[in-house]
Amino acid sequence: MKVKLEDVAKAAGVSPTTVSRVLNNRGYISELTKKKVEDAIEELDYYPNDVARSLFKKRTNFIGLIVPTVSNPFFGELSLYIENICSSLGYKIILCNSSGQFEKEKAYSTMLIRHQVDGILVCSYNRGIDTYKYPKLPIVAIDHYLAPTIPVVGSDNYMGGKLAVQHLIDRGCLSIIHINGPLELETPTQYRRKAYEDLVDNPVTYELQFDEEDIVLSIRKILLERPETDGIFASDDLMAAACLQVARELNIQVPEQLKVIGYDGTKTTRSLLPQLTTIKQPIEEIAKTSVKKLMDMIDNSELSGPYETVLPVQLLINETT
Amino acid sequence: MKVKLEDVAKAAGVSPTTVSRVLNNRGYISELTKKKVEDAIEELDYYPNDVARSLFKKRTNFIGLIVPTVSNPFFGELSLYIENICSSLGYKIILCNSSGQFEKEKAYSTMLIRHQVDGILVCSYNRGIDTYKYPKLPIVAIDHYLAPTIPVVGSDNYMGGKLAVQHLIDRGCLSIIHINGPLELETPTQYRRKAYEDLVDNPVTYELQFDEEDIVLSIRKILLERPETDGIFASDDLMAAACLQVARELNIQVPEQLKVIGYDGTKTTRSLLPQLTTIKQPIEEIAKTSVKKLMDMIDNSELSGPYETVLPVQLLINETT
Repeated sequence: MKVKLEDVAKAAGVSPTTVSRVLNNRGYISELTKKKVEDAIEELDYYPNDVARSLFKKRTNFIGLIVPTVSNPFFGELSLYIENICSSLGYKIILCNSSGQFEKEKAYSTMLIRHQVDGILVCSYNRGIDTYKYPKLPIVAIDHYLAPTIPVVGSDNYMGGKLAVQHLIDRGCLSIIHINGPLELETPTQYRRKAYEDLVDNPVTYELQFDEEDIVLSIRKILLERPETDGIFASDDLMAAACLQVARELNIQVPEQLKVIGYDGTKTTRSLLPQLTTIKQPIEEIAKTSVKKLMDMIDNSELSGPYETVLPVQLLINETT
Repeated sequence: MKVKLEDVAKAAGVSPTTVSRVLNNRGYISELTKKKVEDAIEELDYYPNDVARSLFKKRTNFIGLIVPTVSNPFFGELSLYIENICSSLGYKIILCNSSGQFEKEKAYSTMLIRHQVDGILVCSYNRGIDTYKYPKLPIVAIDHYLAPTIPVVGSDNYMGGKLAVQHLIDRGCLSIIHINGPLELETPTQYRRKAYEDLVDNPVTYELQFDEEDIVLSIRKILLERPETDGIFASDDLMAAACLQVARELNIQVPEQLKVIGYDGTKTTRSLLPQLTTIKQPIEEIAKTSVKKLMDMIDNSELSGPYETVLPVQLLINETT
């Protein structure tokens, strides 16, 4: 049998109202009474019902987190930091993997609102989801522009692209290509592409779908068709890894014949592929800043500080360039 | 202003009780009335309060998921599958990263019980957490033995260790070492170690802490002190990657002078380090089986089927052996 509040009251020799007061830290309670109640809670192994409490307090202490997929090293690391920070502030994370699909993301955002979350952090690929207009619901977008009213926290994608491409140029590359995901409006990787196109004379960008086997096949086709390629700026580390794999298969020497630079620089990439030159995103800072902004909005019901926060990135030079 | 149930009732020209019946699918409602209510919900952009509903139904549709860290490729991929499966069944995931710390895991499990989760999935490193004894709370442990009453789903760790070590022996290795995490009782990696110790004449196992820089330093020390080593069975892919990194630094040729095999075989590892020979765990099957078992316990209040489920692993032979 579950232990109830009434059982605690009985064991402590006080009224249920007194137990409730102790739990909610409301009204005057003597230290002695408080101690008696706390001892009874400990003794009986009582767990207050936080669902009932949240209904009463109109605060659930739930934060919704929508990511494309937590199995991607970047979103995995970001989710870890976000969850840890929220946990230290007394908030719980409801994890949603949208797979980048509009319908899934819409269903998740509806579910989060119905569950009375105090706020949502979105790393989304989808604009135009109506639920994000829900009145007064604090939302912070990470690295994506969702709507004019939703603040954005991210890193400096244009600078990242510039650092990457300039590094390839400095290393002597004459025929640099850029490999990116599907072209969508206003996703941050498009700023990386913009930097590439601004720096290179005859830019050639390939848009690949996010599917591992296809990526390897597509890159093989690209390198066979364009043997003069001596530099690749990949828009994430997984794509860069696929370039290295294809180069090995085709006996193209890296970095002598081909230089490859990735993007993200997660701990996982740095462990599994330490030889990769990459642009490191400040993932922990992105997590801290976006949670702080969301907490400000939850506490003050409106946005203070800048609408957009752009954090610095870092070039990590290793063996592939 | 938030739209309320009463607003929907007014717009639909019915009583609040009728709206509530439609939402909860209770009692007789004519198709016409149902349509009127649904239209009003759509029109007014009404979101039912699922917190209040869950209090009434004594079901929250929340599942707690405790992992050491979602940023590890294995737990990231496992969390993705678990969340996707739960979501398709109408359940939401509360994500908890325990960092393998007893106190954190205890706090998380208490929080989950207070929030009335319908069940918990634990990939834990800690035994003896009292909250796991909470009456009638369905719990399934993934790949860890938590308590005699808590069912376990995992893969065949002894077979995995055997496949790995036998493969190194078959490839001609004469001096095989094993690199594992800290020795703890009854964690599954200890079965991998057991298989190694059963197959090798003079087994040498090194226990490393889970910290990247330390791992690389420790492995360098091991390889310098033990130059006769020609085979390494690492208990996960990240450790195997660190071995490859050190081998490169020390100019030890892989696989000619040293053969390395890892463990886990996640999608991320296979993308970033496709040349690694490894033991692939059936991560999606582990997710499916553990969720199914938990759902059985939630629906039937008791365990049906076996107490322990052991799923098969697979040897993936690549370039490092």
